[in-house]
Amino acid sequence: MSLQLVQIMEVLGGTLEQGDPAMEIQAIASLEDAGPQDFSFLSNPKLQAQMLASKAGCIAVSAQMQEQARQRGGAYLVVDNPYLYFARLTQLWRKHHAIRPVPAGIHPSAVVEEGAIVHPSASIGPLCHVASGAVIGADSVLTSRVTVGADCVLGERVLVQPGAVIGGDGFGFANERGRWIKIEQLGGVQIGDDVEIGSNTCIDRGALRDTIIANGVKIDNQVQIGHNVEIGEHSAMAGCVGIAGSAKIGRQCTIGGAGMILGHLEIADNVHISAATVVSRSIRQPGQYTGFFPIDDNGSWEKNAATLKHLHALRDRIKALEQTQKNG
Amino acid sequence: MSLQLVQIMEVLGGTLEQGDPAMEIQAIASLEDAGPQDFSFLSNPKLQAQMLASKAGCIAVSAQMQEQARQRGGAYLVVDNPYLYFARLTQLWRKHHAIRPVPAGIHPSAVVEEGAIVHPSASIGPLCHVASGAVIGADSVLTSRVTVGADCVLGERVLVQPGAVIGGDGFGFANERGRWIKIEQLGGVQIGDDVEIGSNTCIDRGALRDTIIANGVKIDNQVQIGHNVEIGEHSAMAGCVGIAGSAKIGRQCTIGGAGMILGHLEIADNVHISAATVVSRSIRQPGQYTGFFPIDDNGSWEKNAATLKHLHALRDRIKALEQTQKNG
Amino acid sequence: MSLQLVQIMEVLGGTLEQGDPAMEIQAIASLEDAGPQDFSFLSNPKLQAQMLASKAGCIAVSAQMQEQARQRGGAYLVVDNPYLYFARLTQLWRKHHAIRPVPAGIHPSAVVEEGAIVHPSASIGPLCHVASGAVIGADSVLTSRVTVGADCVLGERVLVQPGAVIGGDGFGFANERGRWIKIEQLGGVQIGDDVEIGSNTCIDRGALRDTIIANGVKIDNQVQIGHNVEIGEHSAMAGCVGIAGSAKIGRQCTIGGAGMILGHLEIADNVHISAATVVSRSIRQPGQYTGFFPIDDNGSWEKNAATLKHLHALRDRIKALEQTQKNG
Repeated sequence: MSLQLVQIMEVLGGTLEQGDPAMEIQAIASLEDAGPQDFSFLSNPKLQAQMLASKAGCIAVSAQMQEQARQRGGAYLVVDNPYLYFARLTQLWRKHHAIRPVPAGIHPSAVVEEGAIVHPSASIGPLCHVASGAVIGADSVLTSRVTVGADCVLGERVLVQPGAVIGGDGFGFANERGRWIKIEQLGGVQIGDDVEIGSNTCIDRGALRDTIIANGVKIDNQVQIGHNVEIGEHSAMAGCVGIAGSAKIGRQCTIGGAGMILGHLEIADNVHISAATVVSRSIRQPGQYTGFFPIDDNGSWEKNAATLKHLHALRDRIKALEQTQKNG
Repeated sequence: MSLQLVQIMEVLGGTLEQGDPAMEIQAIASLEDAGPQDFSFLSNPKLQAQMLASKAGCIAVSAQMQEQARQRGGAYLVVDNPYLYFARLTQLWRKHHAIRPVPAGIHPSAVVEEGAIVHPSASIGPLCHVASGAVIGADSVLTSRVTVGADCVLGERVLVQPGAVIGGDGFGFANERGRWIKIEQLGGVQIGDDVEIGSNTCIDRGALRDTIIANGVKIDNQVQIGHNVEIGEHSAMAGCVGIAGSAKIGRQCTIGGAGMILGHLEIADNVHISAATVVSRSIRQPGQYTGFFPIDDNGSWEKNAATLKHLHALRDRIKALEQTQKNG
Repeated sequence: MSLQLVQIMEVLGGTLEQGDPAMEIQAIASLEDAGPQDFSFLSNPKLQAQMLASKAGCIAVSAQMQEQARQRGGAYLVVDNPYLYFARLTQLWRKHHAIRPVPAGIHPSAVVEEGAIVHPSASIGPLCHVASGAVIGADSVLTSRVTVGADCVLGERVLVQPGAVIGGDGFGFANERGRWIKIEQLGGVQIGDDVEIGSNTCIDRGALRDTIIANGVKIDNQVQIGHNVEIGEHSAMAGCVGIAGSAKIGRQCTIGGAGMILGHLEIADNVHISAATVVSRSIRQPGQYTGFFPIDDNGSWEKNAATLKHLHALRDRIKALEQTQKNG
């Protein structure tokens, strides 16, 4: 597999300030891993030292890093946004070399029920199940062993990783003298365009209305999205996130791995939740929010955790000390 | 889709205090979403204001809320427990309109091994796998892509959502000079009647004895239940919960989303664990238990988390201050 | 099912100090559960009292516990490491009685694409999907509904539980004016020998290089392993663990259930992370590390959690008290 620098630039642009446009690039690699035939990129000015030490054949840099790239001595390309350039290069690379090509149509082992609507350009991979009343839009891909339940609608260019379940029942019960009586989940799931859904992720159907995932949302693996959740455009959530029923997440939010959003909360646009943080109240202001117990050696943790159970009492003792001191 | 009020009352009871029994209900909806053809309910007296503002065609209320319902002006129905009435109405609605009907029998794409016993009224959906020695009871449903391993027994009316795995191996190893030697998992899984198991949830087979899920237990998505766990009747657990091996959960307990129960613990009946709480000791008394780090803006969290590592030392400083003050 | 003591000893060794070698063992059981025809073991000297009370037909003990075993009165076997002996006995038991036998070859319902290489001794179970370019080594087992993506390589004796996904896309995007642009994931997954992978666990393919799971690693259910992670030999992780992209875990580490390792961190060899602990910095020293909020009754938790948000300010008040006291 290879691509000439000039072939890359024809598609993705950039200015070759130093080096030979006919150079054959044989792989894309990190600054650290790249060898003399590889293409790399400097996305973060803090990694300057790594760039100077890199053996990469060619490096994409921003205009501000041009001088440093020149000092390194090898080929370099000036581009607007090196990380974005890298992303587009991975797309070009995969397409050009036909890596893991995705055939349109329905794999013979997939089960597509009568009454499901699958766009002819969509790809339904091996051992997927698309129930009656489901709709799969143009260029969408169910990779392998994906279930899309009845009345669940996927837009265009939706990519669903293996094992994902779209349209399982939401979790709703009324309690009758200690027994749980099922609330039938009568809604569906609506997924917009350009959404990605990770491996073994679950998105439940709504109880009465639909669960809604807007355009451009990216969801990692093992994520759980409860019934009637709404996620705004271009929000992203990392692995193991849980979003409880009827939570409403804004646009362009991010949720770090294993972040948990409790039910019926509202999260404004541009809110960023750190990994492993439990969101237990609505968040109205953009910003970064965090809440996890800091790791420590086990012995120190044990002492501090035990003391934590008396924190409120300690506060009262501080108050008392202040009072006595003041009066004394 | 529609049902007359009188048809609903014939099956579910209730007293129409105001309104026309011939009214055609076209949907079930929340107080907020409901329109003039929709049926809604007031389950929580705190939502009175929402009820008064609701455009619902008919609202189910309890006897205590009758006066307020009359003030609203539209049709209303007095019932014993409005939320329970709503649950039963969703069941009636789904059945009456044949929404997502569940056919008895084995889908041609499912793999049911020789030696498995499947009741003729059970439904084994597309791409499910039922291993030899497994038993699936009357009216139980494996929706789609469910695995039930050898020697796992499901009772009657068990509903298993897509992707669930019942009877994977428990996680057991002995360490021999740094290497892990597998403990073969020789037990099975016993699941009672009226159990629901969520999408992509896993219930491991026991090491020597069986893992046991009692009647009426409800388990949400992405839940992990380790080997030899026992869960008592009518307990419920929300998404992303983890229950480590040999834990024993009582009856009518609830565990909030992402709650984690460590191994070999015992939880009494009627214990309620809040979301994202780690249960690290047995709980002998009914009640509500909680333990997660409160969310804060990131800057505040950083300061408090850093200080938390010195909490034990702070307690000692408070003690010293108290001592000095006392002596002074 | 039964085995004579002498048959067990022929394969696994041990010295029968008391009892009849012709005794028929009918089951393996814990000290508590074992009856007069069952085999049990004392792995932990703290369980002496349980051993003395046990009705087990025969008990495996270490040399140090010999005297206590003799006091009990029944048959006992002296072995080097009773827990290891138990592990090996479960293996012998399963093999001898042909419990859940694993047939070599490809189940007719599995989809193995052209270009995949499956060793003839490997077992590809029902409804599994092995993509083109994947390699499955000798004696490896995909139990049921497992996906192995293109260019993912499994070594020998790898055991994959149902629903696992190996080689889904890693989660990588560049942001372009608020929209996420996919970074195609061009790497694969390399899994060594003697690895076990739990039910519904996900291991993502690398972005540029491969994700690497070394020999002897044991991974429980519902675990999420991000792209470019490397896990060293003989490490083990319990259910619901998440390991974010590019984290590097050493050899012989253990991670308790729901432990979370953030991205790009390095964990040294022989590090043990407690359950539900978030690892937010690299760990260079072996040892046990912990960080989760201690559980409490809900009322106490609420008070302490509220106070925790002022912990930094409390520290300042303690400082001020100390200063005043000193000056006074």
